Amino acid sequence: MKVLGEDIAKDLEEIRRKRPLIHHIMNYVVMNDAANVALAIGASPIMAHAIEEVEELAAIADVIYINIGTLDNHWIPSMIILAKAATKNNKPLVLDPVGAGATKLRTETAIKILREAEVTVLKGNGGEIAALAGSQGLVKGVDSLGKASVEIVERVASEFSTTVFASGEVDIISDGSRYAEIGGGSYLSKYVTGMGCMLGTIVSAFTAVNKDPLRSSIHASVFFKRAAELASRKASVPGSFKVELINAIYSIGREHLGDVEVPVIQVRKS
Amino acid sequence: MKVLGEDIAKDLEEIRRKRPLIHHIMNYVVMNDAANVALAIGASPIMAHAIEEVEELAAIADVIYINIGTLDNHWIPSMIILAKAATKNNKPLVLDPVGAGATKLRTETAIKILREAEVTVLKGNGGEIAALAGSQGLVKGVDSLGKASVEIVERVASEFSTTVFASGEVDIISDGSRYAEIGGGSYLSKYVTGMGCMLGTIVSAFTAVNKDPLRSSIHASVFFKRAAELASRKASVPGSFKVELINAIYSIGREHLGDVEVPVIQVRKS
Amino acid sequence: MKVLGEDIAKDLEEIRRKRPLIHHIMNYVVMNDAANVALAIGASPIMAHAIEEVEELAAIADVIYINIGTLDNHWIPSMIILAKAATKNNKPLVLDPVGAGATKLRTETAIKILREAEVTVLKGNGGEIAALAGSQGLVKGVDSLGKASVEIVERVASEFSTTVFASGEVDIISDGSRYAEIGGGSYLSKYVTGMGCMLGTIVSAFTAVNKDPLRSSIHASVFFKRAAELASRKASVPGSFKVELINAIYSIGREHLGDVEVPVIQVRKS
Repeated sequence: MKVLGEDIAKDLEEIRRKRPLIHHIMNYVVMNDAANVALAIGASPIMAHAIEEVEELAAIADVIYINIGTLDNHWIPSMIILAKAATKNNKPLVLDPVGAGATKLRTETAIKILREAEVTVLKGNGGEIAALAGSQGLVKGVDSLGKASVEIVERVASEFSTTVFASGEVDIISDGSRYAEIGGGSYLSKYVTGMGCMLGTIVSAFTAVNKDPLRSSIHASVFFKRAAELASRKASVPGSFKVELINAIYSIGREHLGDVEVPVIQVRKS
Repeated sequence: MKVLGEDIAKDLEEIRRKRPLIHHIMNYVVMNDAANVALAIGASPIMAHAIEEVEELAAIADVIYINIGTLDNHWIPSMIILAKAATKNNKPLVLDPVGAGATKLRTETAIKILREAEVTVLKGNGGEIAALAGSQGLVKGVDSLGKASVEIVERVASEFSTTVFASGEVDIISDGSRYAEIGGGSYLSKYVTGMGCMLGTIVSAFTAVNKDPLRSSIHASVFFKRAAELASRKASVPGSFKVELINAIYSIGREHLGDVEVPVIQVRKS
Repeated sequence: MKVLGEDIAKDLEEIRRKRPLIHHIMNYVVMNDAANVALAIGASPIMAHAIEEVEELAAIADVIYINIGTLDNHWIPSMIILAKAATKNNKPLVLDPVGAGATKLRTETAIKILREAEVTVLKGNGGEIAALAGSQGLVKGVDSLGKASVEIVERVASEFSTTVFASGEVDIISDGSRYAEIGGGSYLSKYVTGMGCMLGTIVSAFTAVNKDPLRSSIHASVFFKRAAELASRKASVPGSFKVELINAIYSIGREHLGDVEVPVIQVRKS
């Protein structure tokens, strides 16, 4: 099986036609950028965390994206309720376990959401995914430090019956039975805060229009790396790069994706 | 009666001379942009929400701007106290009922502020103003969905004895006895988050220096649409457009407003 | 004693080599910009405020930066715990008392942190430092309004056994026995929100790699003013200026600092 640029372009056109509503609980740091990313790709963002309204919003949203980046004991209950509401309303749920492994609070909150709701895509950086694997004894302690591998990503996907997207210089994506690795992007990405969080918004947009979360994740990965590449052709320093990234997300069309071909590897019978 | 570019330019010069202090309770998403908009037009922003200090700040501010975009049960009490403090201190109060109609919490919070304080300008998008009208039985259910009309805006203005600014492709502004409609702006505005919220900051700045809220609202409308037009001459994609919008807000002067002429229609004896 | 460009360049290279982890409790308004400033200079930012995790994070951070800009009664306890954790873990602590003097809550919170923890650098604008001095009877009431002077800065430094950095058109820095004044920068800085807060991030980065807080403060002052100067050569309006400021922070190297020479005045035996 292969993912082609054609497939991504079709989803992208569907995002721009349907304008899916992405309900975010997003960290404070990246809220503004994530909202602008959502608008630039053609989706509609809501940012809302009040415990009194998250269930109401889950019912009208097309996809839910929970990012735990600036969690605290006021927001965590809202995250849990929203995650369950996503499951109850049969809405796709994207989770970004920001900082899992760095503190107990973060690891435990991410695991709690994974256990109590149906997460459609778990998107973290390689270190966070490895830390979650380590916290559940899926890998030995020493392997849970640092980088994710295809094996770790598969194990986490199987353990939680979800699709796992471990972002990095090479993104690794697996639903436990299939995986893909996607390279590319720009070295400037590491000089802009919240690139992973913005990627979560892009994953949410594709997951709103494509029922196969492995495919929607691959589409988002290729799309975002391509956007970073386009931006880095226009800008070689991070302030300008961020502006050009938003421009690129808005501007990318079918013509920028024609040559894409991502092999998807079957690892076992699902 | 007509509003002329000359009138707007005079207020703008007064903003730049007086540097009015705008106390915001602003949503997380747009705080940074709103602060930069306030500085760019020549005003001074404060962003503060702590219940222990909002009354103290209301006493020193020139205008209060409450935006409920990321409300919750910790912030709502501060919003109410601040709104009442504005009234008590005889300071103009601008309210942006972000998301009214989308959830009960938002509709009720907006109505509570409108009932318990003297709102000088209620500035929402057309859908929010229509939803508030519907929630109070001012229009029939079906009319409260979607767009505002001159009639809806007038009814809301009369009901709450305030000036209502319904923003959209055409802004509709009424104090219940007079109204104006202002077109223009840029289609790129819908690809940048928080344009309505930033507009609230601009309304606040003009309302700090002009005692007639219908006029200050019209001035803000024309000013912001003109800024978007200037920005869209420099940028055709949203990342750059936002940067150019701030540049334009800073740069606009008398020379950019000379040709403005907005008719104000008297609808009944007030 | 003199601070030379060579000294600053050495610290800058050390920042880029070591990538110090700066744990911020930062105000909502400037979180995104401060994170981008940290990345642009070569450091690593964390933004986290949950009372359950701040001690854990203090143990792994290289420097702690507490900015009280959007304090409230949920965040203040985290600030106090984090400040004490910094002291306990022997980590440098930078405090920005945003709005001290404007409300009692702010003045008292800043004083509480200064009394209960060991603040390595107290970085406020001149008015905030003067207000703190006035609140402790270090200067007469009338002198505590408006601007800081070398005398006020020295008294605050001595009173709290800390290094004080009073930012302004001319930055005044003193550890109670030595002081320096640094001019330069750009007039556009006052049209961009959070310049002082971003400066706090720069101070934190230099303080993570240089054990002498008077020197690290001077280095940060010169570096940030130089960055603003470079940005203002590329941009003459505030939207573009902010983008260019991030670009400049990323781009500055040894070649931009060669001519720097800041005299440090010994005011009394320490």
